[in-house]
Amino acid sequence: MQPVHDEYMSEYPPACNRRVEWLTGFSGSAGMAVVLIEKAALFTDGRYTLQADMEVDAVYAKYNSGELAPEAWITKHAGKGDAIGYDPKIFTQAMIQRMQKTLTAKGITLTPSPNMVDTIWQDRPSAPASPLFVHDIAYSGEESSSKRKRIAEQLEMLGADVGIVTAPDAVCWLLNIRGRDVENTPLVLATAIIDSHGHVQLFVASSRCDAQVRGHLGSDVEICAPNTLEQKLAQLGKAGRRVQLDPASASIWFSQVLTKAGAKIIEAQDLCLLPKAMKNPVELAGICNAHIRDGVAVAKLLCWLEGEFYVREVTELDVSDKLLVFRAADRMFVEPSFPTIAGSGPHGAIVHYRVSEETNRVLKKGELLLLDSGGQYLDGTTDITRTVAIGEPSREHRDRFTRVLKGHIALATALFPQGTTGSQLDVLARQYLWQSGLDYDHGTGHGVGCFLGVHEGPQRISKRGGDAVLQAGMILSNEPGYYKAGAYGIRIENLVAVTRQAHGEGGKDWLGFETVTCAPLDPKLVDASLMTQVEKDWFNAYQAWVQSCLSDSLDAHERQWLAARCAAIR
Amino acid sequence: MQPVHDEYMSEYPPACNRRVEWLTGFSGSAGMAVVLIEKAALFTDGRYTLQADMEVDAVYAKYNSGELAPEAWITKHAGKGDAIGYDPKIFTQAMIQRMQKTLTAKGITLTPSPNMVDTIWQDRPSAPASPLFVHDIAYSGEESSSKRKRIAEQLEMLGADVGIVTAPDAVCWLLNIRGRDVENTPLVLATAIIDSHGHVQLFVASSRCDAQVRGHLGSDVEICAPNTLEQKLAQLGKAGRRVQLDPASASIWFSQVLTKAGAKIIEAQDLCLLPKAMKNPVELAGICNAHIRDGVAVAKLLCWLEGEFYVREVTELDVSDKLLVFRAADRMFVEPSFPTIAGSGPHGAIVHYRVSEETNRVLKKGELLLLDSGGQYLDGTTDITRTVAIGEPSREHRDRFTRVLKGHIALATALFPQGTTGSQLDVLARQYLWQSGLDYDHGTGHGVGCFLGVHEGPQRISKRGGDAVLQAGMILSNEPGYYKAGAYGIRIENLVAVTRQAHGEGGKDWLGFETVTCAPLDPKLVDASLMTQVEKDWFNAYQAWVQSCLSDSLDAHERQWLAARCAAIR
Repeated sequence: MQPVHDEYMSEYPPACNRRVEWLTGFSGSAGMAVVLIEKAALFTDGRYTLQADMEVDAVYAKYNSGELAPEAWITKHAGKGDAIGYDPKIFTQAMIQRMQKTLTAKGITLTPSPNMVDTIWQDRPSAPASPLFVHDIAYSGEESSSKRKRIAEQLEMLGADVGIVTAPDAVCWLLNIRGRDVENTPLVLATAIIDSHGHVQLFVASSRCDAQVRGHLGSDVEICAPNTLEQKLAQLGKAGRRVQLDPASASIWFSQVLTKAGAKIIEAQDLCLLPKAMKNPVELAGICNAHIRDGVAVAKLLCWLEGEFYVREVTELDVSDKLLVFRAADRMFVEPSFPTIAGSGPHGAIVHYRVSEETNRVLKKGELLLLDSGGQYLDGTTDITRTVAIGEPSREHRDRFTRVLKGHIALATALFPQGTTGSQLDVLARQYLWQSGLDYDHGTGHGVGCFLGVHEGPQRISKRGGDAVLQAGMILSNEPGYYKAGAYGIRIENLVAVTRQAHGEGGKDWLGFETVTCAPLDPKLVDASLMTQVEKDWFNAYQAWVQSCLSDSLDAHERQWLAARCAAIR
Repeated sequence: MQPVHDEYMSEYPPACNRRVEWLTGFSGSAGMAVVLIEKAALFTDGRYTLQADMEVDAVYAKYNSGELAPEAWITKHAGKGDAIGYDPKIFTQAMIQRMQKTLTAKGITLTPSPNMVDTIWQDRPSAPASPLFVHDIAYSGEESSSKRKRIAEQLEMLGADVGIVTAPDAVCWLLNIRGRDVENTPLVLATAIIDSHGHVQLFVASSRCDAQVRGHLGSDVEICAPNTLEQKLAQLGKAGRRVQLDPASASIWFSQVLTKAGAKIIEAQDLCLLPKAMKNPVELAGICNAHIRDGVAVAKLLCWLEGEFYVREVTELDVSDKLLVFRAADRMFVEPSFPTIAGSGPHGAIVHYRVSEETNRVLKKGELLLLDSGGQYLDGTTDITRTVAIGEPSREHRDRFTRVLKGHIALATALFPQGTTGSQLDVLARQYLWQSGLDYDHGTGHGVGCFLGVHEGPQRISKRGGDAVLQAGMILSNEPGYYKAGAYGIRIENLVAVTRQAHGEGGKDWLGFETVTCAPLDPKLVDASLMTQVEKDWFNAYQAWVQSCLSDSLDAHERQWLAARCAAIR
């Protein structure tokens, strides 16, 4: 059994860990290959079934895992007494327990084994070994020593001697370091162990740490060779240590090694998860600054597009490439935070569309362009979607855009008591679409890191399962949409920060959102007759704020364009 | 250990099962008494801590169970090797497992034992033995044989031979019977076993079933003496039967008896729960009719109150008594569906206020009266709250009432796709209060039965945990409120039916609510300047509908009063 994700539970592993792609050809971000002696199968979710059919040889039977789970398939093709090997480093405890339940009933066992793809992969690329670099205190806002002290206090409260930090973004946050091990996210793929005094063992090749990084990490952070991790875990066990581990994100390998060696495991959510999600004032200021500079690039792109469109044919790739040029002009820009989605006409309705030479198409009059993109800046991560009309939009375009906009505004202006979860607020963004029997088949908001992952937990805004309480300092996207298959897609995405408001009755903490994304919306798509005065006021105030923030960084022509685009609607 | 609820898991047990009240004096609807050899304690939730202090002798230490759980208290006062007896008939599996977890760690065991209160209760009232009566097909809309067939099919699908129906309201629904075993709900306290052919064993004294009931039940329903239940369960076990049981509502006694005898238990939600909640067209028509007749009584009461108030002093008890007189005039009325809450001024802020001779107070000018009441009618169960101004309301009264009303309207007019849960919609009712830093500390809506419980599951509308999907035919309350301690309470409660709407995009099922409660709202409390035109239109249409439904059943004076109260606001 081989899932797409790797030992860091990342959907986007580095080349050396794209085992399923090497084995089967499948390049999607979720799925699992199962190889028996005489049969093999590939399981993906509904988003990827077409892609799997195109990419994967007929040797593999292909299934939608929502319709047939891998373990159900195994019970059909394996029998009593058979053993299925799995690499314990790439399965969580929950995954193995779920599969074991079905298989045990049929007398099939799951057996931990070395990774079988690795044993036959001859020309496997080497592991990423980008140099680590310091994430400056000017951007992180809190010294690593202070973060480590906070985590150590939490370990004490849990009665744990040490905690295992298995998520690479948590390691980066904790130590104020970054790397370039994967695309789109400035990660160091590394694991750390922190004890209740705040001392850390960081498992990363010492050759990747220069003098500056070593100086930054200081004497309380010991750099250990990655291949000593197992031995160090075993030592914890032999010493009878109580070890905190997050069963939702750590692979089952950790608990197997620790338990076997005699450690007592204390299951608790990754201790860095919440402090990382709740940005400090320095991070929030950086995020706001990054969004204004990002907004300059987006505004320049939109202005360029409007001019260019009259001069020559413009393609989706042109838009994507030009946007990167504008973003790259900023000296704090590092890379896109994900592959740009530039979906014109029917491509806009494909939620995870990615433009390529093969799919590239020319923008046409009367169509919509959905442009979802973002940047990694030293001071923050951006993620923005703008939907713009190429030429004149249709009546239907405007009706749907306005319903999406009303939902976006309802969420942006929501006030709510401390203790509220994202799933409680989700309906605010959907209600005006629902009134017309319309909906969108994705979440309304995801957490975003600070010069880290463009998707981070625990906060999110979705129909269900958004059980994490929203807390001041969290960054979320606000991105309702509407998609008409084969025709067009609409999404309005701004990032918002959860902010403290005037206290509620009885002195209770009350929260709201402050929009940080700063780029103009397209007024041609707004049907003002569907909007209340309060909604129009919000729209006009937002556009005026965008104009005031961006104008000084634009040339005269762009400035004029922005003024026209930001003119108040009535 | 003795909880307040009884073997039917009811909060409102009959006199013979009010064991905690007999033992300790505590008369609240939730709590638990624990008696050790040298110490005793009573645990209640936050609603009842003051009441427990007043009612219960100092022999019992009193605790808020949210702050100190009974099992935590036990670990302090009992030690390794001690055994705590519990009556397995009044604890669910989940309750025992939760407590056992804490106690086992301290070496304390929980031991099933006969009920120790029963063994010492000398003058215990006899068990209720009200005659059963048939719930006519004209009200139930589906023959019991048809219901039994549907449940039998579900048993087949689960691979179960029989199912245990432990909830009395499920037994009543399944067999189209009712009784008067408890106040406010027309229940027969009985258990049933149904097999996969639809045959039923009903455990109830045969003396309670007259010829009409026997004829109604027919040959497929065997009446068994209640004291044979254990033996019948054991027979199922000995025969190796697969038995469906709902671990959330059945006491642990059932699984203990069945498992010991060798039965295989299939855990699944009470099979009657959903079909009972999704009312058929006959039930819905009856419910609408009952609400119109109930609305006549409420309108007469409100008109009487407005006249009476100028003539003499009116008390809360006067209001409650007079309302019962108006309701009782209907020949289909059986009894109130719960004790009337008539809370004037500061009493309105006590969410579970119950007027008594001791608390009774005279209504005063400038105050609000919160009147929450309901009736059991042969064709439906009602539950309505009206808040009315006595004399002129204050500016604050009107602001708060209007915010509650806006939330009530937002929920009443919501449209949503099939698959939506109540917790997804809850925020719609709270949003306008939240905008002002205000909230209410109770759920927004609960399910209601048809001539059955005024609270029923699985559907509800609440901040969290309303995980049951809303389905066409379900009845729910829509009851946002606002409470200012020591000053006043506001609640606007109508019952609504979940109804199918025009299909959504792609032919998806789309749902909405139809308000069935039919009684005038108080326009004096509305600040129209805070309302949108859509909201004012809803309010005026509702009031006009109420007027058209009720006028013919009122006398000339009342009709004139209603016309004035239902005049459109601008």
